[in-house]
Amino acid sequence: MENVNCARVEALRTLMQENGWDIVILTGSDPHASEYPAARWKQVEWLSGFTGEAGDIVVTRDHAGLWTDTRYFIQAQRQLEGTGIVLHKMRVPEQVPIPEWIASLEMDEPVIAVDGLCQTVGAIDVLRAAVPSAVIVAVPDLLSVLWPDRPAIPSTPIITLGEDLAGESREARLRWLRKWLIRQGADAILLTALDQIAWLLNVRGQDIDYNPLVISYLLVTLDEAYWFVRKDAYQDPDSETADSFRELRADGITICDYTDIHFNLSSLRDSGVDRICVDASTLNSTVRGALDDGPEVVTVPSPVPLRKAVKNGVEIEGMREAHLEDGLVMEQFLYWVSTHAGMVNEWDAAVYLGSLRAQVAGYRGDSFETISAYGPSAALPHYVTPRCGSALLETRGLYLCDSGGQYLFGTTDITRTVPLGPCTPLEREDYTLALKGHIDLSMAVFPRGTAGCQIDALAREPLWRAKRNYGHGTGHGVGFFLGVHEGPQDIRQNFNSVALEPGMICSDEPGIYREGMHGIRHENLLLCRSVGDNEFGSWLGFEPLTLCHFDTSCLEVSLLTADEREWLNAYNERVYRTLTPRLPAEVAAWLRTKTLPV
Amino acid sequence: MENVNCARVEALRTLMQENGWDIVILTGSDPHASEYPAARWKQVEWLSGFTGEAGDIVVTRDHAGLWTDTRYFIQAQRQLEGTGIVLHKMRVPEQVPIPEWIASLEMDEPVIAVDGLCQTVGAIDVLRAAVPSAVIVAVPDLLSVLWPDRPAIPSTPIITLGEDLAGESREARLRWLRKWLIRQGADAILLTALDQIAWLLNVRGQDIDYNPLVISYLLVTLDEAYWFVRKDAYQDPDSETADSFRELRADGITICDYTDIHFNLSSLRDSGVDRICVDASTLNSTVRGALDDGPEVVTVPSPVPLRKAVKNGVEIEGMREAHLEDGLVMEQFLYWVSTHAGMVNEWDAAVYLGSLRAQVAGYRGDSFETISAYGPSAALPHYVTPRCGSALLETRGLYLCDSGGQYLFGTTDITRTVPLGPCTPLEREDYTLALKGHIDLSMAVFPRGTAGCQIDALAREPLWRAKRNYGHGTGHGVGFFLGVHEGPQDIRQNFNSVALEPGMICSDEPGIYREGMHGIRHENLLLCRSVGDNEFGSWLGFEPLTLCHFDTSCLEVSLLTADEREWLNAYNERVYRTLTPRLPAEVAAWLRTKTLPV
Repeated sequence: MENVNCARVEALRTLMQENGWDIVILTGSDPHASEYPAARWKQVEWLSGFTGEAGDIVVTRDHAGLWTDTRYFIQAQRQLEGTGIVLHKMRVPEQVPIPEWIASLEMDEPVIAVDGLCQTVGAIDVLRAAVPSAVIVAVPDLLSVLWPDRPAIPSTPIITLGEDLAGESREARLRWLRKWLIRQGADAILLTALDQIAWLLNVRGQDIDYNPLVISYLLVTLDEAYWFVRKDAYQDPDSETADSFRELRADGITICDYTDIHFNLSSLRDSGVDRICVDASTLNSTVRGALDDGPEVVTVPSPVPLRKAVKNGVEIEGMREAHLEDGLVMEQFLYWVSTHAGMVNEWDAAVYLGSLRAQVAGYRGDSFETISAYGPSAALPHYVTPRCGSALLETRGLYLCDSGGQYLFGTTDITRTVPLGPCTPLEREDYTLALKGHIDLSMAVFPRGTAGCQIDALAREPLWRAKRNYGHGTGHGVGFFLGVHEGPQDIRQNFNSVALEPGMICSDEPGIYREGMHGIRHENLLLCRSVGDNEFGSWLGFEPLTLCHFDTSCLEVSLLTADEREWLNAYNERVYRTLTPRLPAEVAAWLRTKTLPV
Repeated sequence: MENVNCARVEALRTLMQENGWDIVILTGSDPHASEYPAARWKQVEWLSGFTGEAGDIVVTRDHAGLWTDTRYFIQAQRQLEGTGIVLHKMRVPEQVPIPEWIASLEMDEPVIAVDGLCQTVGAIDVLRAAVPSAVIVAVPDLLSVLWPDRPAIPSTPIITLGEDLAGESREARLRWLRKWLIRQGADAILLTALDQIAWLLNVRGQDIDYNPLVISYLLVTLDEAYWFVRKDAYQDPDSETADSFRELRADGITICDYTDIHFNLSSLRDSGVDRICVDASTLNSTVRGALDDGPEVVTVPSPVPLRKAVKNGVEIEGMREAHLEDGLVMEQFLYWVSTHAGMVNEWDAAVYLGSLRAQVAGYRGDSFETISAYGPSAALPHYVTPRCGSALLETRGLYLCDSGGQYLFGTTDITRTVPLGPCTPLEREDYTLALKGHIDLSMAVFPRGTAGCQIDALAREPLWRAKRNYGHGTGHGVGFFLGVHEGPQDIRQNFNSVALEPGMICSDEPGIYREGMHGIRHENLLLCRSVGDNEFGSWLGFEPLTLCHFDTSCLEVSLLTADEREWLNAYNERVYRTLTPRLPAEVAAWLRTKTLPV
């Protein structure tokens, strides 16, 4: 029997011939440039069988290739077997990105078809610069004719967050955005990124796994706001969503159908809009096309991500609350792990952890797929715990669990690595050095204006001095009941010049991974806050939001400095005192023994 | 009596009127974009009286302004008094750089005259972009008609360095440069930066204070090399310079007159040069003009700075030797300071230190003007020790001395801050925290590919945690018997992406400055070197080249980590053991007491 993906590629080639396309490019993203797309837009997976979270495909008349990065080489090689699709490696020194690769074909005026809904304007600009002679055709839903059972655009229930949860009304946020528009000399902005829309309107959905988002566009003018959402899918007048729509309409938001975006944009000039701002990094090409012959288009980064990243007082209190609830869950989970090691496997543990989180009032699902990994499993960079046949949690060595919850009042993301019995000297040393890095970043004080890349080395230097390292960033921004990854700030080696600001939340997660042996990561979420001003400047530091002890039983205490030891003891004591009143007695008693000072 | 600078500005305005210029721009640099110009090119100083090391001037018919940065605000305000010249502040948030300022005048097609010899092509491009309607006139030596006693172009003796000193012959360096040219598809390069020329030809002069450079241009084609230098000034056939010229000619270098550069460039096409590389950051506008209607001009960064920054084995051995000699000087100096405190002033100390360095075989002058600063003087960012009336070195508090030597076999740059008697608790704490930063950077290990801005925080974090900081970079590159400041690498907050490489030399000089109280800086030069490869990467670290103890008598030892204390004791012991055999007995005995472990 012929390989199904091989057949799909051939069907696409037939379509190409019929339409006169020389090349087709498909991305792994959706019309909103989301990090994680809904099933409908898993076009790369449908065509190739590749399930990694990052991958683009190019098909020519005689070549089909998948472009992905180091994290997915092994997986891609395995999943592409028999498809005839060739792996093109990215994030390696010899990488040839798609635009350069197409240019190297030296075709004379090639016709390149892209799914206009899933290619950003920014990506097409890069392609056009690399292949100036190309004729680029943006076809919306290019694959649909070949994909009869293609999933529909999701339409999960939509809820709203009141000021008691969000700390700021949508009117206030719209007012702020309109002030920004006036400063830009513009009279409208089109928001296309889902997390920006959810934040601005104080709405949440479940259209994407782990991401409480609503598939939609938002057009804001100086007087009006039009939300383009699948309103046809919500017919029940008694539903939560109908209530949400009523609330939004009462606030002056016009609810339009998702597919009407094209019509509305192309008639914008008639509505008196002369100058509209769009963000090329998230605007798709087909929607951009609707603005042709319309108002003047100003391409400018959206102001929402930076403002969204700086949490207000209510959001911060909500995040503290979420981390208190999450801490209670984690300590009960770790107690269970300590009493069940030798009897349960990685999958059992993940399921049990999920069941504990599900009991929290306000829980709205996990914030990402739990990584539950024992021993060598934890050393694999993107380990997915298998439902069947996952590894037993043995009564020795290290178990790593990276998980998080979405709550109505905040988002969590925590990694703990715990010893399940005796550990080797190398495990102990790795565990301690990574924890030193975690603590050093957590203790850091730095002047206002400092960017994450300027303090990333603080988390790495304890490992570096022992000539060890980790291949991922140290910290990512975290949303408020939104994506567990958000910008614009981060803490990593890349030269991102966005300064850390009071109210931003970042993860602090150094680690170390040894193939075939063990993987270690220690992760708290940190709240950036002011720690005072003086003649030398304005000073910032971090407050750990995460509340869950770090295990000291496999620590090489002699490797800690006095400051690090003091920090660790104070943190564990704070965890104990904060959580104990609400923990079951046996867990509280166990936690007391786990948090004694070293 | 009218202010002399006021009169000069008026004379310039008359010249402007005669020539129909609306605006004149003068820079503080020379035709080679040198950091420090010779007297002839101190045009800003001549016109305005301002003696700071960074400043540009703009004169219009009704305004005259000096643009300089934070370091020089106080000095500029004082020196500009009565001149009618207004201070424009740079490196402040509200700064308006010269191009933007001229644009804000909204003049209709203004005629802007610049000294074409002292404006780089890069700077003129920026100006043209900001003021597209401007007519820019590049006039060489624009001020000369107003400046009758203007100093001549310097012509100090020229020496050559053999392979025994430089570690690589000029033939080898020319061969490398020509290979680079071929890779660029070019057949010539014009080098205009003086340190690049000195390095490539293994020549040294004394045309600029503290910088062993020869004012010249160098044109290298695939077969020939033409050195444009003031050969008319060297008539004595028995001189050192005549010997140098003979040696260069024997190596196939054609010696041309400095002023013939224009003629030679404009006839390049006739010599078969089709494509010439120039570096816009150091090429001046007048010389660029000579290439008009000539070969194709490729504007590309010169490859010399990076290669020059990576020292070869012989250069490294020379630098070690230079630091041994310099260490002997410094320990004798510090012994003298300890025995003369209360009796000598800052100037006496600087003179004595200079006299010690002058006794070293191979000494070729200081590498910069010695900063000899007691107590509050040391807190001033660019303190110049006055010949008359400098402060007494009292028998209490801290004395800071920042100095360096040029030797035939290397360049040094060292700062020591030493207690001259009892110190306040704040002095002790500041001293210790800055030293912790120095040690932490010195101990750093980091993966290949790391840039200085990614490890700068290691030197700052001990101060940052106490909410203290310093307003300068942590480290600059240092030349081999060349400029004490050189690129392309550095260690500072700015996002300079050049990675540190084995063989590069950088200073490590954190400090702290309290106005009216004290200033502290601890500076060694560090050699970057490989410390091994493993599965986690290729690892780099630092070897301190500087050999001079750090005073422990005002240390708050309790603030050091065990690692820092171990580093300090090992370093001081190494200094003692290395220097003692060649120190006078009483200095050696004193050094023993100063280097006992803490």
